[in-house]
Amino acid sequence: MKPTFDLSLYLVLDPDLCGGPQGMIDTARLAAANGVTMVQLRAPNWKKRQWLETATVLKAVLAPLGVPLLINDQIDIALAIDAAGVHIGQADLPPDATRRLLGPGKIVGLSASNAAQLADAPVGLIDYLGVGPVYPTGTKADASPVIGLELFADLMAARPLPVVAIGGIKAGNAAPVIAAGADGVAVVSAICGQPDIVSATRALQQEIAGARA
Amino acid sequence: MKPTFDLSLYLVLDPDLCGGPQGMIDTARLAAANGVTMVQLRAPNWKKRQWLETATVLKAVLAPLGVPLLINDQIDIALAIDAAGVHIGQADLPPDATRRLLGPGKIVGLSASNAAQLADAPVGLIDYLGVGPVYPTGTKADASPVIGLELFADLMAARPLPVVAIGGIKAGNAAPVIAAGADGVAVVSAICGQPDIVSATRALQQEIAGARA
Repeated sequence: MKPTFDLSLYLVLDPDLCGGPQGMIDTARLAAANGVTMVQLRAPNWKKRQWLETATVLKAVLAPLGVPLLINDQIDIALAIDAAGVHIGQADLPPDATRRLLGPGKIVGLSASNAAQLADAPVGLIDYLGVGPVYPTGTKADASPVIGLELFADLMAARPLPVVAIGGIKAGNAAPVIAAGADGVAVVSAICGQPDIVSATRALQQEIAGARA
Repeated sequence: MKPTFDLSLYLVLDPDLCGGPQGMIDTARLAAANGVTMVQLRAPNWKKRQWLETATVLKAVLAPLGVPLLINDQIDIALAIDAAGVHIGQADLPPDATRRLLGPGKIVGLSASNAAQLADAPVGLIDYLGVGPVYPTGTKADASPVIGLELFADLMAARPLPVVAIGGIKAGNAAPVIAAGADGVAVVSAICGQPDIVSATRALQQEIAGARA
């Protein structure tokens, strides 16, 4: 059966920003214990052996906290560790092939960065959309053009699936994204590499809760 | 059931040396019709969508010729197209995880570049070893130290599984590798990018047959 999931505060782990494998594991543990509701492992330059080792530890760390681990792009790694699901981009394995490999019991998220990609989203095959970049971001070298809050709100009005917003979101600018209709926010640098992971996570959590109140 | 396979003349397709996806497809078609016995798709920098598209075409081209297509490293792609098998390196998914994902009916090859890696080869989990570089090669940026013919022959004396030799092999230097005990030779630039794919393939095939006679 598919695990229930909560997009509210979605941490994307990046090796560079989170201090390598051990930094990612430590960050995930603290963040998941203090408000992060989902974790995605994204490491496009890693070899699979490194992927497998780190994903195995992350799953063991997150499972007792009830926080699902999603694997970015590498469906074989998700299968090997029996992850809760995957996140795919527009140039990754297509949703139909991804769902066929994973079966119905796993979470599949798809990135979308414009109205056409939202309209084309295969709602029967995937579970949520990652939409962005909402704000300018330096984290992802191949990011699409910035959407901006106004257009983002327009996109949310017609969203076919739950949406987690991504791109330049941090404490202080998360509330408007939730107010615009996002079901949650995804962050990398707003948690990874912060001097106090617990405070950074709680500040985001409180801002999201406040925007919903 | 596991397909039978013949390591004699094993073509590794590289996007740079073979002229991109279409060049790889054209090369594979001509080479497989003229003596190549196995084809491996290796494209470490590709996104998965490109992998899926090219692997799908390659499988369709090679199947009528009875030449198995192996996928380098990306087990998810091999599963998605139901490839004949995979080839993994020492930093890729380990043989046990690879075999578990693929099941018993697929070919699994493993790279080994020294005596310790040959001795550690899990003979129950894999079907052949790719051993090299036998000669100096410019094709693989992260290649291991050159083994050389003399040490290669020593390694072959204790080989636990069928071996395809790789690394700098071309018409003119393939025969000594077969004479040293290899079951076949793997090539990239000796076929890919050659002005006459058919002649290049046949020259290698004849040299291998001659070394065995």
